[in-house]
Amino acid sequence: MDKSKNLYAVIMAGGVGERFWPQSRQHIPKQFLKILGSRTLIQKTVERIAPLIPMERVWVVSNQKHESLIRSQLPKLKKNQILLEPFGKNTAPCIGLAVAFLNKIDPEGIMVVLPADHLIRDEKEFLKMLKAAADIADQEESLVTLGIKPEEPETGYGYIHFGKPIKKGANTPFFHVQKFVEKPTLQKAKAYLKDGHYLWNSGMFVWRVKTILKAFQEHLPQVYEPLEEFKKAIGTRGEKKAILKMYEAVPKVSIDYGVMEKAASILVGSGDFGWDDLGAWPGLERHLKKDNQGNVARGAFVSVDADNSIVLSQDGIVALLGVKNLVVVKTKDAVLVMGKDRAQDVKAVLEKMKGCAEYKKYL
Amino acid sequence: MDKSKNLYAVIMAGGVGERFWPQSRQHIPKQFLKILGSRTLIQKTVERIAPLIPMERVWVVSNQKHESLIRSQLPKLKKNQILLEPFGKNTAPCIGLAVAFLNKIDPEGIMVVLPADHLIRDEKEFLKMLKAAADIADQEESLVTLGIKPEEPETGYGYIHFGKPIKKGANTPFFHVQKFVEKPTLQKAKAYLKDGHYLWNSGMFVWRVKTILKAFQEHLPQVYEPLEEFKKAIGTRGEKKAILKMYEAVPKVSIDYGVMEKAASILVGSGDFGWDDLGAWPGLERHLKKDNQGNVARGAFVSVDADNSIVLSQDGIVALLGVKNLVVVKTKDAVLVMGKDRAQDVKAVLEKMKGCAEYKKYL
Repeated sequence: MDKSKNLYAVIMAGGVGERFWPQSRQHIPKQFLKILGSRTLIQKTVERIAPLIPMERVWVVSNQKHESLIRSQLPKLKKNQILLEPFGKNTAPCIGLAVAFLNKIDPEGIMVVLPADHLIRDEKEFLKMLKAAADIADQEESLVTLGIKPEEPETGYGYIHFGKPIKKGANTPFFHVQKFVEKPTLQKAKAYLKDGHYLWNSGMFVWRVKTILKAFQEHLPQVYEPLEEFKKAIGTRGEKKAILKMYEAVPKVSIDYGVMEKAASILVGSGDFGWDDLGAWPGLERHLKKDNQGNVARGAFVSVDADNSIVLSQDGIVALLGVKNLVVVKTKDAVLVMGKDRAQDVKAVLEKMKGCAEYKKYL
Repeated sequence: MDKSKNLYAVIMAGGVGERFWPQSRQHIPKQFLKILGSRTLIQKTVERIAPLIPMERVWVVSNQKHESLIRSQLPKLKKNQILLEPFGKNTAPCIGLAVAFLNKIDPEGIMVVLPADHLIRDEKEFLKMLKAAADIADQEESLVTLGIKPEEPETGYGYIHFGKPIKKGANTPFFHVQKFVEKPTLQKAKAYLKDGHYLWNSGMFVWRVKTILKAFQEHLPQVYEPLEEFKKAIGTRGEKKAILKMYEAVPKVSIDYGVMEKAASILVGSGDFGWDDLGAWPGLERHLKKDNQGNVARGAFVSVDADNSIVLSQDGIVALLGVKNLVVVKTKDAVLVMGKDRAQDVKAVLEKMKGCAEYKKYL
């Protein structure tokens, strides 16, 4: 594959992954876990794009407390390729930070923005889309986002309503975005699926450094101005302090809300490469083989009269007897047992633990 | 309390306690666990009777593989007070073994037979009953069993149907046994409770050594004869070998089936001292305080929208989210999650594990 020299990857690895407790902890979020397979999600993310974007053009943005995790999991990454946030302010400042650095290196460069914790089954097809998106971002000077052809009326994702293809009559998977849509009700999700003009919002973006910088300037001056101030400190001894100052100044805002929904012309690629954001434990059901009772498991597992359950077992065995529709996650020092339909509420458990001094060590 | 010099205790500690997996294991059955409180069940059993029967007159019968557990949990017990079975053959041979030893020491002695894994809330009342039973066993030369006034229509216990009191018109809690009854259906158990002439069969016995020996001779010659043969070897170098020979010769038979149900005259004490055989995990509900959602827990526990569940957590925390009527038991290397109504079926889980070579280490 053609490794375009001006193509850069920015891996967003700032997530806390609370929904993957007890495997994910404050000191080791989801993207640093081997949720499936023998490599961590961030390792998979970097390795997946290697045929198109080699390690030396990969930047990782993450919380500063996870620096050592990144360095140990991606040992070939140089220190200056790890951009550390003092605290999270959602995706717009995170992307802004990377834009500021890349603008210094290669303002004509094209950057691919990827979350660190997604799974992709068809890597070839994914790279093909990514390359096509980069070409379009280069030619059209547009903001391009990758959408995903929905497989089911999923209510856990945002949707992108798309309109005309970018080239009249041409057979292209790229379209003009009509509207970004919030996570829908099941009824609406079903209608979107039927309509055929809606894609899942994957949170993956491709654009020229200067195009996104201009968009920040136009739509998100509250982030753009502190960024411009910060840029002066890049490469100086005051850089770290300047990052802190910038993060203190900017609002918490997502790139979708702050930029994408406001920009006049956004393009979206209609992707079909087995994408999965693996948003919570039940997401594993799509990747593991079910037994005759509909259970999926990783690790030592035994069951009698147990149905449709999901079991993750580290450091030992999980036994189910006469239960159904459960998620059971065992780590060395914690066990979560929840109804499969409650996976979005793990945060409530963590909140409760935060209120108890002796349980904080399990967060 | 009067420590009658001729009163001996025989603690039956041969149980495997599979229903308390994963806390109980093949190498550490229920009676050696701290199921409730800071002492193990066998320690509690021995300490409870100390005001009546001091340690030097206590004998423990258990499987030979548990010798070191007994010695470490009951360090004051002398080596010759631990009688080791090569394998279990139910309660009749176990009691027979102790009878053979006590017959050598004090054929006129009275022996109290107690399971090692029961709980008793009112220890004073229990000792009072035990003393009274010993007096009756002495005077009447009868086989005496301790029954328990039923608190609910329990279907997990056998029952004892009693008739007339031992002394006409006297206010005594001791009665003639009419019949031993198998574990009943719920309907029958309700009828027994209403009738008022039924007691739970606790498996605790009091009798003279020579009385029970005579009963073995009369009703269970298949055990009596190998025992008589074995008695010759007591105190010799061939003792251990003789025990093995005796155990190979005798049938698997319970004292209830083999002796009590056949003997002409059995007496039963009607006990009311908060007895609990703690037969399976749900038994803990009777001993632990419920939270507002009806959950009981030992160890670190957090819950959101969880009801009527039982949680035991060792080495870490258990979190429940959106579940009900579960039993969750966590140890360092194993977790059991089961419906509360399935506690009698833990054996089925263990059977399944036995079929998998790599899971045998968890048994």
